[in-house]
Amino acid sequence: MALDRLKSVAHHVTGTGPLPHPFDPLTNAEIETAVQIVRGEHGQVHYNAITLKEPAKKEMLKWLENPARPRPTRIADVVLVAPGGKVIEGWVDLKTGKITKWISLDGVQPLITMEDLQIVEHIVRKDPKVIEQCVISGIPAEDMHKVYCDPWTIGYDHRFGNNVRLQQALMYYRPHVDDSQYSFPLDFCPIFDAGKQEIIHIDIPEIRRPVSKAKPNNYHVDSIEKEGGYRTDIKPINITQPEGVSFKVEGRVLDWQNWKVHVGFNYKEGIVLNNITFNDKGTVRPVFYRLSLAEMVVPYGNPEHPHQRKHAFDLGEYGGGYMTNSLSLGCDCKGAIHYMDAAFVNRAGDSTTIKNAICIHEEDAGILFKHTDFRDESVIVTRGRKLIISQIFTAANYEYCIYWVFHQDGTVQLEIKLTGILNTYAMNPGEDTKGWGTEVYPGVNAHNHQHLFCLRIDPNIDGSNNTVVQVDATPGEGEVGSKENPFGNAFYAKRTPYRTVKEATSDYNGATSRTWDMCNMNKLNPHSHKPVSYKLVSREVPGLLPKEGSLVWKRAGFARHAVHVTKYDDEQLYPAGRHVPQTSGEPSRGIPEWIENGDASIDNTDVVLWHTFGITHFPAPEDFPVMPAEPMTLLLRPRNFFAKNPVLDVPPSYCSTPSQIASKSKVLNAADKISQLVVSSGDAECCKK
Amino acid sequence: MALDRLKSVAHHVTGTGPLPHPFDPLTNAEIETAVQIVRGEHGQVHYNAITLKEPAKKEMLKWLENPARPRPTRIADVVLVAPGGKVIEGWVDLKTGKITKWISLDGVQPLITMEDLQIVEHIVRKDPKVIEQCVISGIPAEDMHKVYCDPWTIGYDHRFGNNVRLQQALMYYRPHVDDSQYSFPLDFCPIFDAGKQEIIHIDIPEIRRPVSKAKPNNYHVDSIEKEGGYRTDIKPINITQPEGVSFKVEGRVLDWQNWKVHVGFNYKEGIVLNNITFNDKGTVRPVFYRLSLAEMVVPYGNPEHPHQRKHAFDLGEYGGGYMTNSLSLGCDCKGAIHYMDAAFVNRAGDSTTIKNAICIHEEDAGILFKHTDFRDESVIVTRGRKLIISQIFTAANYEYCIYWVFHQDGTVQLEIKLTGILNTYAMNPGEDTKGWGTEVYPGVNAHNHQHLFCLRIDPNIDGSNNTVVQVDATPGEGEVGSKENPFGNAFYAKRTPYRTVKEATSDYNGATSRTWDMCNMNKLNPHSHKPVSYKLVSREVPGLLPKEGSLVWKRAGFARHAVHVTKYDDEQLYPAGRHVPQTSGEPSRGIPEWIENGDASIDNTDVVLWHTFGITHFPAPEDFPVMPAEPMTLLLRPRNFFAKNPVLDVPPSYCSTPSQIASKSKVLNAADKISQLVVSSGDAECCKK
Ligand SMILES: [Co+2]
Ligand SMILES: [Co+2]
Repeated sequence: MALDRLKSVAHHVTGTGPLPHPFDPLTNAEIETAVQIVRGEHGQVHYNAITLKEPAKKEMLKWLENPARPRPTRIADVVLVAPGGKVIEGWVDLKTGKITKWISLDGVQPLITMEDLQIVEHIVRKDPKVIEQCVISGIPAEDMHKVYCDPWTIGYDHRFGNNVRLQQALMYYRPHVDDSQYSFPLDFCPIFDAGKQEIIHIDIPEIRRPVSKAKPNNYHVDSIEKEGGYRTDIKPINITQPEGVSFKVEGRVLDWQNWKVHVGFNYKEGIVLNNITFNDKGTVRPVFYRLSLAEMVVPYGNPEHPHQRKHAFDLGEYGGGYMTNSLSLGCDCKGAIHYMDAAFVNRAGDSTTIKNAICIHEEDAGILFKHTDFRDESVIVTRGRKLIISQIFTAANYEYCIYWVFHQDGTVQLEIKLTGILNTYAMNPGEDTKGWGTEVYPGVNAHNHQHLFCLRIDPNIDGSNNTVVQVDATPGEGEVGSKENPFGNAFYAKRTPYRTVKEATSDYNGATSRTWDMCNMNKLNPHSHKPVSYKLVSREVPGLLPKEGSLVWKRAGFARHAVHVTKYDDEQLYPAGRHVPQTSGEPSRGIPEWIENGDASIDNTDVVLWHTFGITHFPAPEDFPVMPAEPMTLLLRPRNFFAKNPVLDVPPSYCSTPSQIASKSKVLNAADKISQLVVSSGDAECCKK
Repeated sequence: MALDRLKSVAHHVTGTGPLPHPFDPLTNAEIETAVQIVRGEHGQVHYNAITLKEPAKKEMLKWLENPARPRPTRIADVVLVAPGGKVIEGWVDLKTGKITKWISLDGVQPLITMEDLQIVEHIVRKDPKVIEQCVISGIPAEDMHKVYCDPWTIGYDHRFGNNVRLQQALMYYRPHVDDSQYSFPLDFCPIFDAGKQEIIHIDIPEIRRPVSKAKPNNYHVDSIEKEGGYRTDIKPINITQPEGVSFKVEGRVLDWQNWKVHVGFNYKEGIVLNNITFNDKGTVRPVFYRLSLAEMVVPYGNPEHPHQRKHAFDLGEYGGGYMTNSLSLGCDCKGAIHYMDAAFVNRAGDSTTIKNAICIHEEDAGILFKHTDFRDESVIVTRGRKLIISQIFTAANYEYCIYWVFHQDGTVQLEIKLTGILNTYAMNPGEDTKGWGTEVYPGVNAHNHQHLFCLRIDPNIDGSNNTVVQVDATPGEGEVGSKENPFGNAFYAKRTPYRTVKEATSDYNGATSRTWDMCNMNKLNPHSHKPVSYKLVSREVPGLLPKEGSLVWKRAGFARHAVHVTKYDDEQLYPAGRHVPQTSGEPSRGIPEWIENGDASIDNTDVVLWHTFGITHFPAPEDFPVMPAEPMTLLLRPRNFFAKNPVLDVPPSYCSTPSQIASKSKVLNAADKISQLVVSSGDAECCKK
């Protein structure tokens, strides 16, 4: 049955008929098939997630090497809540229609879905104890429809443990339905029991802070019109590709400027990039087996109870895929755009689709390289191009814009923009924030916080056996006048190969401009005789500011260090554990478990590098009522990977040689003829060639 | 006489007749006038530089406040070499035609001009001792036309001191005139005496390294064609502004998105931005009085003699303006472009012009801000724009692309791209680089080096009286369980105001994500009650790796620390001194002189912040034979400067409110209608709405 259905949907879904690529996310049809199989054996349940169980790497590498081999089986990884609240993890083999794993878990809470979140506000509004607190806060009982909440997982609260599924409701008020609630935070925090579907407790601070009487602080059209309207002096910039784009898409495999990359997507990590290769003059060289943002945590720094519970794991607790935006042409995305959709399951077991979940487009990247010979003015100017694979997800108040940027020169860049709205808390007029936050608007305290991301890098630098090397810019031995450093000017790149898991547990060092090379020690660059490598260049690497032993320190073990390296394991995908909500951190899940044996070898083997980076955010009024995007970036750069600059064959815009200049012969001039000079006429500016 | 000429040229030059803005660089006519005046009194001399002597700040601030006041006088700042080699500094008052300063300097060498550089190669080729060394290197004496040199200032060599004007000739060979010489470095280093116009010495290493026999390694069209040709799969991206640009230019004052900035230019610093203000809802608020790259140094890390002399001060020794490229439409610059030219004097006293020295254009900047309400999908998406003022200069082998980027949200970004060619040195087959460099091609040793820039920030945060505050992200006091930090999650921004010059001499701290706020302590943000400020966010901040007491440490005193703060002084513009070539560093010029009195107050007064940043470059083969551009960036961000997000009035692409969604009423949809979906048809990709 399942088989028949699968065959029939395969054709429907892929159009031209081929089976899904083994890395492809489950299609809607596959999700529905999985549900059908589960339903057949176990009846009605609440689905939390159905996603691709990615093929075992060993098997997958064999298939990638020879796609004529049997294709790895499609397996649906299912998380569901059975009647009575039991959490089940299962695998459904979509080929055989068999359930091959069915495990019931105790003391574990799967992530909170949008459906889980949506319900809380309705229950909060009707709860008599909440209404009582609203009245105390200065909101009439009849105005409960003006009360809102952002439900967060509770994080962990020792009073309630993790057998009961809980959310904490961060409370707000809207004088008018269109007012931004973040200007009107309430001071108490109801706790919602998803099993009972009721409020089981309210955390009430000792000092009460009635709802602010300040006027609303909005960003929608009406409010801007009332404050003087929009600026009218921004002239359009049009970006077009009349001859089409420079990338090809086959299924979900992108082919662009020597790069090939499979674009996956799942409910937790969002975009997953697989099997990234670079065609180096005819040789297809593996670079990364898999890249993804695997986790993040946003600890808040206000020491007052219950703010220590505010440390959202946006990926592990809510899902960077589940929260992703449906992107819009000409708004989120500009130029010539290719979209990909995302398929999920809902609680009832229907497949759902987020249209335009992933945006793929090219951008001009300015000067790729240039050189002028000062003697004779012979010159080459070559412009660059980049390919951007992006998504935006909304985590309650915050927006995270994720840009995976491929450059022609072999660089992979991860750029993240933070926008959206600050999480806010109530404060009384004249109250001292004590340095734990900033009054960004009257009555609005935006607490200090960090955004710490964990990038999972599964390197495949000319093969699976790789070694991570710490690189520190270091002065030479010996002071001025010494034999080895007579002039004192010597410096070098100090290389520390990580042989064991313990050695690899390392922090950033700004003083040495520390970087990390992922090397294949078995292959040397033909010129430099150094191992081929990719270098992680990351400069926004704050340490975890909460102290050792704090709740977030225990739960977000990955964030204790900038870099961890582990030996590859198919089951190790999530650095804070697979089911993050309500973990106590005792023991710490994820990376701390995997690095328990510090002596385990990570030398010249299949390794994974986990990199924690991000920013510490001390809010300011310019971040409110909505934040201008704050950018953050890191690079993965080929070093000693190529025998020479790999972009010499990108057509230059202009190239002349000394002999051409001397003989006044024709030079290459491929300048873009669309660019124009601005011509000023009075106070209007226009353009002209 | 001078007056008459000035009057007549003023009309010619400015067209509509107004006098130059006091910040405007000298025009060609003004330069010619200055020469005429000097010539009248002193006869024929060799001109090194004629540039605007910028008005005294005190006077200028008065004029800016009330432009009806008398305009500050135009003064030409002249550096010249009188017959006999005497270096003269003079001021020529262009209004009165009087020479108001005329000082003869001893033991000082003004910067090396392009004309100074050009001559060395010709003399090197004819020098018998150089020919002898070439023959030893394997180059026949009849092939001296294939020998090239990049003349560098000598830096400082104690054997020769600084009374004789010297250059060191870094030697190369070209098998063919179009071959890149950097693949064929020679191992000896002639020293050129500009007074005698001859080679006075040759530094010859103990170990000889004959010229490489490797085949040429080029990037020009012929060589790429021979190696398989150019890639053909890059489809054009067109960027147009059919309704014109969003900025206005009046003289050299740009007006864009609430910003106003005067764009200056001089032979040393290149672009200088003056009197930067932001119109905050009708109030024009000063932000920076002056921004420029004031100096840089590129120390090389090979300890062997004479490589310790390789530490170019590209601005102070050669001039970021003198070396600037004439930019080209559709090559260097894409879109709708406004250019500005640069005027200089040549050695003979003629005025010269570099056309298109400065490129000014707008770019789309992606998402400016976005938020979606997860309850009801009400959303706002606003796209951003940036204004870029850029130049590119060629420092012998290297290219530096400088982008001053203005953002709508009040952020000023400095982005620098490094491209061009590595400085290279000869190595024998099988020779060990000992970690001081990388063999990037057979026989080519590219030495480790740093690119350290010194950004001069003259803040004017709501007025001249500013204070610099060091900000460190810091965990709260007390461990987990303590009274003040019971949950261990507390953290805050530790603020250390710099009261004295000594306190302000500070390094970067990656562990605390250190930033520096330029504050006006006399004005508090209405909401946060914190001082209005601009924050320097800079993450590429390596320390100076050469040791204390080394030549570069002595000469480049500015590079010893990431930040220095000095009290404003009209005469303090150049952090390594005004005349950099051949300074011995004894005493250290520039900042070390200015901070001698460590107790001098910099508290709530007119201050200048000097910031040294950059990268440490360990070369790799992918950087050769020409480097893909490596980017580097820093931000100046408004913090507690605005009462709220200053870009709320930028027209959104899309905006819907909860009530509009509930009532299904019309929402704002201003999506760019030019963007298109990619449509795939077979292996061709094209675009469609
Ligand atoms: Co934040
Ligand atoms: Co470099």
